[in-house]
Amino acid sequence: MKKIVVIGGGTGSFTVLRGLKKYPLDITAVISMFDSGGSTGMLRDEFGILPPGDVRRALVALAHENGDNALRELFNFRFESDCSLHGHSFGNLFLMALTKITGNEVAAIKKASKLLNIKGRVLPVSIDHANLGAELENGHTVVGETNIDIPKHDGNLKIKRVFVMPPARVYSETKQAIEDADVIVIGPGDLYSSVIPNLVVEGVSEALAKSKAVKIYICNLMTKWGETNGFTAADHVREIVKYAKCKIDYVVCNNHEVTDKKLLQKYAEEKAYPVRFDEAELKKLGVKVIGDNVITEPVLIRHDSEKLAKIVVGL
Amino acid sequence: MKKIVVIGGGTGSFTVLRGLKKYPLDITAVISMFDSGGSTGMLRDEFGILPPGDVRRALVALAHENGDNALRELFNFRFESDCSLHGHSFGNLFLMALTKITGNEVAAIKKASKLLNIKGRVLPVSIDHANLGAELENGHTVVGETNIDIPKHDGNLKIKRVFVMPPARVYSETKQAIEDADVIVIGPGDLYSSVIPNLVVEGVSEALAKSKAVKIYICNLMTKWGETNGFTAADHVREIVKYAKCKIDYVVCNNHEVTDKKLLQKYAEEKAYPVRFDEAELKKLGVKVIGDNVITEPVLIRHDSEKLAKIVVGL
Repeated sequence: MKKIVVIGGGTGSFTVLRGLKKYPLDITAVISMFDSGGSTGMLRDEFGILPPGDVRRALVALAHENGDNALRELFNFRFESDCSLHGHSFGNLFLMALTKITGNEVAAIKKASKLLNIKGRVLPVSIDHANLGAELENGHTVVGETNIDIPKHDGNLKIKRVFVMPPARVYSETKQAIEDADVIVIGPGDLYSSVIPNLVVEGVSEALAKSKAVKIYICNLMTKWGETNGFTAADHVREIVKYAKCKIDYVVCNNHEVTDKKLLQKYAEEKAYPVRFDEAELKKLGVKVIGDNVITEPVLIRHDSEKLAKIVVGL
Repeated sequence: MKKIVVIGGGTGSFTVLRGLKKYPLDITAVISMFDSGGSTGMLRDEFGILPPGDVRRALVALAHENGDNALRELFNFRFESDCSLHGHSFGNLFLMALTKITGNEVAAIKKASKLLNIKGRVLPVSIDHANLGAELENGHTVVGETNIDIPKHDGNLKIKRVFVMPPARVYSETKQAIEDADVIVIGPGDLYSSVIPNLVVEGVSEALAKSKAVKIYICNLMTKWGETNGFTAADHVREIVKYAKCKIDYVVCNNHEVTDKKLLQKYAEEKAYPVRFDEAELKKLGVKVIGDNVITEPVLIRHDSEKLAKIVVGL
């Protein structure tokens, strides 16, 4: 069975993993562990555990879907935000309680994986407690993933560099998974707050360099205010290569124009616009370009998990 | 397979159920739904769900114990009381989230039963939302299970009568279970705040009368301040018969003297003393008396679940 490693966090990884789990693949999800917002941030701050949010999403994505989905549903359940349970995700509380019972996050993830009967495994990129930081083009530094994700600073400013502090080391099993992979999928996901945080962990780029895997980057569909204003597909790839420090074999880009004006307007209100598919520029970067319609747009502009999985498996 | 129904709630039922599950029996736990203290009370007050605490304990008691006990452990896990999760029992949050997902408590209990792979079933005595009340010998009325359990009034005062308000109706499946039972075990457990609350639910005494089951009452080991000060075994039985309105065939009493002075001292500090085994008086009540050493006393004076189960199965 081909070994496939998906590197990311958040909704992007969820989409990729959900699609891939239907194929006969040995799947490893490598998840960024530096989130600091919402329920995750509260639990992280108060209880000193690693942020559970993205791990939870990956577990749900890979969870067995036949028969009774009660536990999967529970993992996705969220208490109301104005109640004494502070809008916590039940899955986050589940992972936290398991962490307290087992004594560490990795054991908790493994227990939850078994309970949810997941296909494959979910690994933290690092088990070191660290915060994400970003240096802006004006020299200022922003600390905390949530402050990059939802910028309090002038979102027009470009991000010059992201880093984690204190430095975090790649988790041993994760390093091994990357080195042993046949295929590595990076992204999609918020470039500086979900995807690149994995790549700045010490040892990840070394493992990527050592790995003989086919490396695929799945480019975002929309730009993101405060992170990737005006970025084309080539701009995304350049940043990935800069941090991954390895050759990217394929980039999967959307070449389908979103026509739903109302939907685009909604995104425009958050200063998010479709990522331009600059094919000529991409080719100059020495990466094989897969341009396809990889969009599903019922209420949000999102990657279509089945289309993505089909393309990745095809490669 | 013999059908056995255990009526109670709290630690007493937990002990009985844990012992019985090792025998080839069709077990139904009927649980009082009027608790109002602690984590249970908070969830009940804020979210308007039926109190989950005793249901949780019964589920854990009947949960499959082979292999990986992660979910059972989770059900028993409690967040620290001084944190933003208010000392909630994780199992209570689990049942609450399931209630929100499924839309009602019975469906939630059934889902949880399946997830925990329990032996038998757990049924609420009633699905009506109601509060427990107690009329004291001085004519005053105390409302709320927790105020009876941990008396704010003068604990010397005898309880004249307990009731639920508004009146609660027996749950249909519970009524059927009682009527169809081969054996019914009542207690042990706090007489007025755990056991009798089941018997004052409309339709329960009628179902008991209709049932051809052998009826066994397991008498408490210790008296309880504010509920059963100075009660002998016969006093307990008299109260049970008064509310159950049916013949009790057997009463199981402890006849073993607790010798651990330190342990007795600890109980005495809470004005709790061993229940006197007044065999002659019991026999006058027309009930067959089983006097045995049914105690386990490592740190607390508790019923021994294996000894109890053996006696019940023997009957």
